[in-house]
Amino acid sequence: MLIVQKFGGTSVGDLDKIQNVARRVAVTKKNGNDVIVVVSAMSGETNKLIEFAHYFSQNPVKESMDMLLSSGERVTAALLCIALNEMGVDAVALTGRQAGIKTDSIHTKARITDIDPSLMQCEIKQNKVIVVAGFQGINERGHVTTLGRGGSDLSAVAIAGSIKADLCEIYTDVNGIYTTDPRIEPKAKKLDKISYDEMLELASLGAKVLQNRSVELAKKLNVNLVTRSSFTDEEGTLITKEENIMEEPLVSGIALDKNQARISLFGVKDRPGIASDIFTSLASDNINVDMIIQTVGHDDSANLDFTVTINELNDAKSIVNKFISNGDITDVSYDDSICKVSVVGVGMKSHTGVAARAFVTMAKENINILMISTSEIKVSMVVSEKYAELAVRSLHSAYELDK
Amino acid sequence: MLIVQKFGGTSVGDLDKIQNVARRVAVTKKNGNDVIVVVSAMSGETNKLIEFAHYFSQNPVKESMDMLLSSGERVTAALLCIALNEMGVDAVALTGRQAGIKTDSIHTKARITDIDPSLMQCEIKQNKVIVVAGFQGINERGHVTTLGRGGSDLSAVAIAGSIKADLCEIYTDVNGIYTTDPRIEPKAKKLDKISYDEMLELASLGAKVLQNRSVELAKKLNVNLVTRSSFTDEEGTLITKEENIMEEPLVSGIALDKNQARISLFGVKDRPGIASDIFTSLASDNINVDMIIQTVGHDDSANLDFTVTINELNDAKSIVNKFISNGDITDVSYDDSICKVSVVGVGMKSHTGVAARAFVTMAKENINILMISTSEIKVSMVVSEKYAELAVRSLHSAYELDK
Repeated sequence: MLIVQKFGGTSVGDLDKIQNVARRVAVTKKNGNDVIVVVSAMSGETNKLIEFAHYFSQNPVKESMDMLLSSGERVTAALLCIALNEMGVDAVALTGRQAGIKTDSIHTKARITDIDPSLMQCEIKQNKVIVVAGFQGINERGHVTTLGRGGSDLSAVAIAGSIKADLCEIYTDVNGIYTTDPRIEPKAKKLDKISYDEMLELASLGAKVLQNRSVELAKKLNVNLVTRSSFTDEEGTLITKEENIMEEPLVSGIALDKNQARISLFGVKDRPGIASDIFTSLASDNINVDMIIQTVGHDDSANLDFTVTINELNDAKSIVNKFISNGDITDVSYDDSICKVSVVGVGMKSHTGVAARAFVTMAKENINILMISTSEIKVSMVVSEKYAELAVRSLHSAYELDK
Repeated sequence: MLIVQKFGGTSVGDLDKIQNVARRVAVTKKNGNDVIVVVSAMSGETNKLIEFAHYFSQNPVKESMDMLLSSGERVTAALLCIALNEMGVDAVALTGRQAGIKTDSIHTKARITDIDPSLMQCEIKQNKVIVVAGFQGINERGHVTTLGRGGSDLSAVAIAGSIKADLCEIYTDVNGIYTTDPRIEPKAKKLDKISYDEMLELASLGAKVLQNRSVELAKKLNVNLVTRSSFTDEEGTLITKEENIMEEPLVSGIALDKNQARISLFGVKDRPGIASDIFTSLASDNINVDMIIQTVGHDDSANLDFTVTINELNDAKSIVNKFISNGDITDVSYDDSICKVSVVGVGMKSHTGVAARAFVTMAKENINILMISTSEIKVSMVVSEKYAELAVRSLHSAYELDK
């Protein structure tokens, strides 16, 4: 098999851990696989470099930030390559540029536009293990760029896609994807397989193992993604296309997102385009609105409830206040002690009654549902934050995820 | 003027010093010059990275070492560029590759084979200050290489040559080149100008401000080199071609090299080729022999004295011992408490009596001269190490270098 293995910052957090990674790579190679390793910077390094930059400027010039930050991954790649060669594994370290990773020019948040895998293919033919510095590429002018948060995952997935790897393993400090957060429900089970779409819902809903950008790219490039721990030999979770999952469970997992706040607008004037005005104003300030519910008020006006993430609440407030000054809204209230609990599963598509079971479960526990939204593969409910753990546990049990 | 400014590890040793460098660069630019800055890694960084590598291997694979070590200069270049932009100076940071530095493939000790200054010329035209990560280039296959000790100086000189800079300033923690080591002779004077050849003699004789490789390259590319301090505004020393120095002093400086040992071979058999055998053996072990003196012994045999650097003495001993075993030599003695004192000056070419004055001076001080060698622009004498400082001071005064 041709396997891409990506090791994040905590997996290469110190020299000892890099040595461990080298051992794991050596075993994978010894077992007859071709291996391309993608590494992040040693944990703490990137933050150190950012601090250095902030000594000079609160808003450091982005092109230079990219040259600065890309150095961390190069150090790890070089060290891992040294360790591998010392173990007798013929390995070569490549920068993002050498790995053929081309990006656009949006410095510090570049997108991969193309990968030229020719040098990698050539090294693989020579039976070498390749160690690639993740998180980086070059733009059309040959300047170094970085891919933003989760960038090394993106490097790994893009490389796996371009070189048609059989597997792309993302190593972190967790064992895989669980039916829910095991800190909330100790009976949570690790999933063997999960579809891209389920993973996207779980990730965006608060399961922080993989960034959505990586899962989206894996889906687009049809890359079999495995997330597993670099500290154990336990099998991880395979994230793959739906067709590859034989027995689709009704529900794959319960996600919890406490990072939500609700904004309730009262007495919203009944004139065309007002809701559109409000949400356009929010969007132009890059505020992500999640759920929206409109209810008819007691006169000609309506009430409008919506959720934003807590760290965008203040920005949202100042926008909403403009509409109060205008007289478009009579009143507003905020609630940042809410949370969003979601039931996710591709099985919902072909089964009825999944949502109903969620509502029944909440009712049984006397949990008031404040807002509801559904998609093809998920049911999300906003409830008071004090019920967060109870809601997760009862749903987990209601859908028999602990079995 | 187009000025290349190179700042070494101590000049960029911490964030505060990088800020100072930025200020100096900004002033140079503000005064109407075009500026290309070449930087080393922050002092200590390279050693830290080497230590990291040695955690994994005592003999780390060289290609990876180059990727590892080259990251230090990139960090400094990026930080300096951030600082400059914050000061309102439009600056761009370039890696060795982007600066067009091509090298051979002798990893960790690569030689610059070519420079393509087109990107630099383009940025200069746009009125930008360029900050180049020193010490590095890429080979024909696009792999990162490093230039070995003093590599950033080489980067600076090569860039200055390729882009036809008016001046290449090498900033260190010393003010320039002195007539002799001021720690030995407080009356030592800083030289305003010195020729390439004199600098080469002074450097190889122990004045460690500039590496000979850099001076040789400057001579070859006809680069006006200035060495000065990054911590003061004092003018430094210009190293240039002889024609540019109007008033050639008889003697420019006195150099001292304590890092020498003498090997005396007694009863060297009088057969053709024996001296050649000995020195070929030493050379094939990369032992640098400096001075050689042959004297006729009391019978058919001869005595042969020569000097090596102290750290090569042990290797030299084991080679010499083979010739004793062979019977080619009857006896050997070693003396590592010697030193070499040299009088250097292009003026010697056109003046007689310079060497004689040196010998007279030694005689006046009752210093026994053990060995003598001369070239067009220097007179070197080996004396007992205990006379080192006395010899330097009396020569410095004899040639009126304190005036």
